[in-house]
Amino acid sequence: MNLTRRELTRLMGAGALLSKLPLSAQAQANQSQGQKLRYCIVGLGRISMQHFMPGVRQSEHSQITALVSGHRQKAEKMAAEYNVPLKNIYTYDNYDGIAGNKDIDAVYIALPNSMHAEYTIRAAKAGKHVLSEKPMATTVKDSQAMIDACRKAGKKLMIAYRCQYEPTNLRAIKWIRDGRIGKVQAIESSNGFNIKPGEWRLNRKLAGGGPLMDVGIYSLNACRFLTGEEPARVEGYSSVIDHDGRFKEVEENLSWTMKFPSGILASCNTTYGANMDGYYRMHGSKGTLHLEPAFSYEGLRFKAKIQGEHAVDEPTNDPEPRQFTREADYFAECVRTNKEPKTDGEEGLRDMKWMAAIYQSAGLKEG
Amino acid sequence: MNLTRRELTRLMGAGALLSKLPLSAQAQANQSQGQKLRYCIVGLGRISMQHFMPGVRQSEHSQITALVSGHRQKAEKMAAEYNVPLKNIYTYDNYDGIAGNKDIDAVYIALPNSMHAEYTIRAAKAGKHVLSEKPMATTVKDSQAMIDACRKAGKKLMIAYRCQYEPTNLRAIKWIRDGRIGKVQAIESSNGFNIKPGEWRLNRKLAGGGPLMDVGIYSLNACRFLTGEEPARVEGYSSVIDHDGRFKEVEENLSWTMKFPSGILASCNTTYGANMDGYYRMHGSKGTLHLEPAFSYEGLRFKAKIQGEHAVDEPTNDPEPRQFTREADYFAECVRTNKEPKTDGEEGLRDMKWMAAIYQSAGLKEG
Repeated sequence: MNLTRRELTRLMGAGALLSKLPLSAQAQANQSQGQKLRYCIVGLGRISMQHFMPGVRQSEHSQITALVSGHRQKAEKMAAEYNVPLKNIYTYDNYDGIAGNKDIDAVYIALPNSMHAEYTIRAAKAGKHVLSEKPMATTVKDSQAMIDACRKAGKKLMIAYRCQYEPTNLRAIKWIRDGRIGKVQAIESSNGFNIKPGEWRLNRKLAGGGPLMDVGIYSLNACRFLTGEEPARVEGYSSVIDHDGRFKEVEENLSWTMKFPSGILASCNTTYGANMDGYYRMHGSKGTLHLEPAFSYEGLRFKAKIQGEHAVDEPTNDPEPRQFTREADYFAECVRTNKEPKTDGEEGLRDMKWMAAIYQSAGLKEG
Repeated sequence: MNLTRRELTRLMGAGALLSKLPLSAQAQANQSQGQKLRYCIVGLGRISMQHFMPGVRQSEHSQITALVSGHRQKAEKMAAEYNVPLKNIYTYDNYDGIAGNKDIDAVYIALPNSMHAEYTIRAAKAGKHVLSEKPMATTVKDSQAMIDACRKAGKKLMIAYRCQYEPTNLRAIKWIRDGRIGKVQAIESSNGFNIKPGEWRLNRKLAGGGPLMDVGIYSLNACRFLTGEEPARVEGYSSVIDHDGRFKEVEENLSWTMKFPSGILASCNTTYGANMDGYYRMHGSKGTLHLEPAFSYEGLRFKAKIQGEHAVDEPTNDPEPRQFTREADYFAECVRTNKEPKTDGEEGLRDMKWMAAIYQSAGLKEG
């Protein structure tokens, strides 16, 4: 192992020397500290390059050992940065070759939504575990096919619901389960952003839907994990306000209501026409919990007003990209201990089914 | 006019000497400064005694000259406090006698909801203008009858929608009309409280409905005045979670969604099972407006996050009971200048129709 002084300084500066070691050295390190989950990154977009990969770099239980990209130059640049050997760079054409690559335990799928199913199924057939970004697919049918393929291959499938591994959200769940806010009556949540023209998210074939699929899913998933219930009924409305060419294929706004079996009512909004600070607010008989931001990569804030107690308003010190580290490491633990992930394919499928029902109610179609 | 030193000190301390003068002296004062609207207070409950009457006491254009109550002792106590002559104390039985009382220009109706219609119609027949609390009635039919009676009598009818005369809400409307937040896409609003057993609000015959009628109406009305539009579609869900005897007759929770013709989507929650800080949040293409509290008697807060501008977070200095002073004086101005109130019977009726539609959609009934 030869590092120039400059390289060493840069690596030390990143505070993550271990994961930057060449593979052979890493393999030795792994043996001495237990097995790391070795990820092949499928799709070098923003979430991979700016969030997930830096998250894995900080990790003790995960590492990046392969890449899949259609852009050779970008792939080589990232390979150099993460010490991935050139032989472990794949294209979408030779992707199935990962089957024979002993450096890869799992794939992380960060492609446009409509490609999740295909690349999950191909990974399962290649004998690799799968961590897929949300939404898990663009249709219920594709989602089921992903579950079936991973089950058949005996491989784990996890959907990347960051918030279910994030401390502020976990604290909210705990407070609710502990009865700190009393009986929950109602929830409001919204999440959205003002989208730029030309994003693949505006292409129905790639995205499968609009803001509900992309960011509204955070509110939907949160209402489900906060209540611990599945909706008894959902109802949705959608609209397009900005006739500027962006919303020819997907909705701009979607508003939906859910009634849970306990009687809890949830009202949610999502949009591609306005920057919303994703949040949720739960109203209980003893007080209110309010997370804002609730879904961001960092800087989450926990607010509580409980009857007879001091108000709580606390920021979360969990700087980017730690949420991705937690997510990657949780999946590593699931694989190592043969544990079914909390946010497995079935969990992803439930959201897909609710989104399809919301779309149907709003007069739109899934997929 | 004879005042003891102690009485004078108390009156001066209240900062409202004028309205505490005996009627004859007030009448002279009125002549010198223009006409005051002389209110007969119908119903001595919390909103009258703790809010509206103190609001009128601070007013320059309104005064209290008569009272209607079933509790003689309470009426005499309030009469003494507001210098109302004993002859101007009425019961619900001899209420129609206000017809011949030249000290009364208008009535302020603060009775349980189901009595608003009867006492409005009797007031109109007695030749008095009417300021009625919200909701204007418990049914669309009663509301229409109130409008008809006042129209026939040539008297003004105003519904006491405080927020439409309150500076923070007016500022929100202005920002939206001026395009400060861009094109509005979505609104969230909630309002509610954890109700005590035994309140008349839990009696369907008196209240006509649950939290939607009582406090959800603030969110409904706000969505309408903020957008300046009438919903194209509404949808509601209701539930009872607390089976503790409070909710045998009215709903505990109600959640509803509205789609406006422009495409704006609104999600609202109301409850009698949790203390909500009534608020609304509007998401526009350029930024977000957030009022919280938005509907309280004082301490309202205006927050805005506009793209490229400094965040705004400003409390409103408009201490209780000034909102009631504004409301009373606005109605006085309408009577004096023969102007139709902004929140007239038709405005109240629109909310009644939407609430009936929300109830119907939720499988409940109005009234």
